[in-house]
Amino acid sequence: MFDVGPRNLITDVNGIKVGHAQDANALTGTTVLASAGRLVAAVDVRGGGPGTRETDALDASNLVDALDAIVLSGGSSYGLAAASGVAAKLGAQGQGYQIPGAPLVSPIVPAAILFDLSNGGNKEWGEDPPYDRLGREAFDALAVDFPLGNVGAGLGAKAGAYKGGVGSASAVNDAGVQVGALVAVNPFGSPVMPGCSAFWAWPFERDKEFGGARPPADYDPVQSGLPQDTKAGPIPGANTTIGIVATNVALSPAQMKRVAMMAQDGYARAIRPIHTMGDGDVVFSVTTGELVPDDSQPGIVSLVGSVAADCMARAIARGVYAAESIGAMKSYRDVFGVS
Amino acid sequence: MFDVGPRNLITDVNGIKVGHAQDANALTGTTVLASAGRLVAAVDVRGGGPGTRETDALDASNLVDALDAIVLSGGSSYGLAAASGVAAKLGAQGQGYQIPGAPLVSPIVPAAILFDLSNGGNKEWGEDPPYDRLGREAFDALAVDFPLGNVGAGLGAKAGAYKGGVGSASAVNDAGVQVGALVAVNPFGSPVMPGCSAFWAWPFERDKEFGGARPPADYDPVQSGLPQDTKAGPIPGANTTIGIVATNVALSPAQMKRVAMMAQDGYARAIRPIHTMGDGDVVFSVTTGELVPDDSQPGIVSLVGSVAADCMARAIARGVYAAESIGAMKSYRDVFGVS
Repeated sequence: MFDVGPRNLITDVNGIKVGHAQDANALTGTTVLASAGRLVAAVDVRGGGPGTRETDALDASNLVDALDAIVLSGGSSYGLAAASGVAAKLGAQGQGYQIPGAPLVSPIVPAAILFDLSNGGNKEWGEDPPYDRLGREAFDALAVDFPLGNVGAGLGAKAGAYKGGVGSASAVNDAGVQVGALVAVNPFGSPVMPGCSAFWAWPFERDKEFGGARPPADYDPVQSGLPQDTKAGPIPGANTTIGIVATNVALSPAQMKRVAMMAQDGYARAIRPIHTMGDGDVVFSVTTGELVPDDSQPGIVSLVGSVAADCMARAIARGVYAAESIGAMKSYRDVFGVS
Repeated sequence: MFDVGPRNLITDVNGIKVGHAQDANALTGTTVLASAGRLVAAVDVRGGGPGTRETDALDASNLVDALDAIVLSGGSSYGLAAASGVAAKLGAQGQGYQIPGAPLVSPIVPAAILFDLSNGGNKEWGEDPPYDRLGREAFDALAVDFPLGNVGAGLGAKAGAYKGGVGSASAVNDAGVQVGALVAVNPFGSPVMPGCSAFWAWPFERDKEFGGARPPADYDPVQSGLPQDTKAGPIPGANTTIGIVATNVALSPAQMKRVAMMAQDGYARAIRPIHTMGDGDVVFSVTTGELVPDDSQPGIVSLVGSVAADCMARAIARGVYAAESIGAMKSYRDVFGVS
């Protein structure tokens, strides 16, 4: 079985680093994940209103089979510019896909954005949105330790009726398998079970990492229909949960696609409803490839995928739990009166 | 909010009928869903080892935008023949897609199969597998009332460590919206929370429709890793959950795709792990189109999808709860000593 890694962050996968940058005035921000080397990767786009960049390149049948960094950003479609800033910096230091004979490498920086334009921040940036700069700043902040909650892509996020944020979680086992998740939580649906303070992800919680609330013993099963604590109206693109799962198990791009798909089930278990027409949900998956799986483990892909789904559910609840109230966006802890 | 429909079956969507046929000697069977008219439909294939027929035709960018029946069958790839039997019968009565000038209609009968070849039944059918016949018998058995558990495509099914079966559930509201789910439950993963008798789907249970078991108040959160009560080894294609969600809300094929995608989240909430490399999970979605949505309901697709996900989670647990032990395949009720 798996235990929580030493940091309980996606950076418990050796070599992975994460950096945040944010604009407190605009109430938005950007999060970057990278490592010293290139990462074999895949992506699964599952929401009805996604905003992405370089996701086609990751298809297992296409040329590129590794990436140089991933950008998660607020800012709706403007936020995709953060990847431009990161790509410019990577290229200047020579990291990227080398087409033989080309004078420059081509940095592969997939990105996904979430919608935070209506959160009350000052978005009067005219022709100069801040995301190219935020991408560069987040890249410069890359580190193994990083904060959760109102940071980076989570600064302007809202999760159903609660302030959203950036979450992360990890799991490691004695065989050296490392799995972690990173997510910016901004869904239409709710991370909380209706009528109580328990997160939907409660069955997966380790060491009260998101407060320890449980459904009461006499909990009334939910009625179908949209819960009361969603965001106002499932408007296309006005929501979105974007995340990354990482492992050290050496898997192929096609196998990493399965891992990303299974990690979407972590979204499903932690948020209800999810994958609506008004969510642009995306999960990236990356591997450092440091641990070559034993041939006697035919189920290694499904194992990594299952652990990734658990980590993702925990990361979602941790992100909401860590977030603090900003104006009308009330935090989970303020709504339920927990410290 | 929604209540359970009068039958708590997918046939609470007016016009939908379901029929089962099974071969007790071979421990396998087939389930057919149809209506008097054609059904606008979509499909979402999400497992790693699917076995399907006519799923490409359902793509929203393709010609066909309605189907005549859906087949869910045991028998692995042999089971796809059940759709041939159903198509032959439908064509003989003139139901199908009419290419102008053609002497016959082309019945559109999408199908998905599950793997039940290793369940101990007598599969020595040589060159004469029973599925064409089973498809015809299931079609002849179409009715609004139908049994759950060890019937049709669920006769030979196993859900993790427990006997699997056919499940169904429904939800209806005062505005006349009808939603239902039908599923044959045969996953690698478990429908039960580790260490107790509660179904993963317990938060969605209506009227103790699957026994009412709850996690204890001091339930230890799960550790990551594969649970103890999966099937033996995640062998590609050796598992699979196949289901259908139905509604009366008039949605387009593209909108019905979103409904099918969201219904997969019912799988994720009711089974852990799900969507593994060794599961061939498929969800079809169909609508009778009887209820034209009010233009003031921009979220109708997400609403129907959310209710469909809830119904699917309930249907999964109901299918396992209704199943009875066969040989080494012990039922949930026998394992946990509930009547």
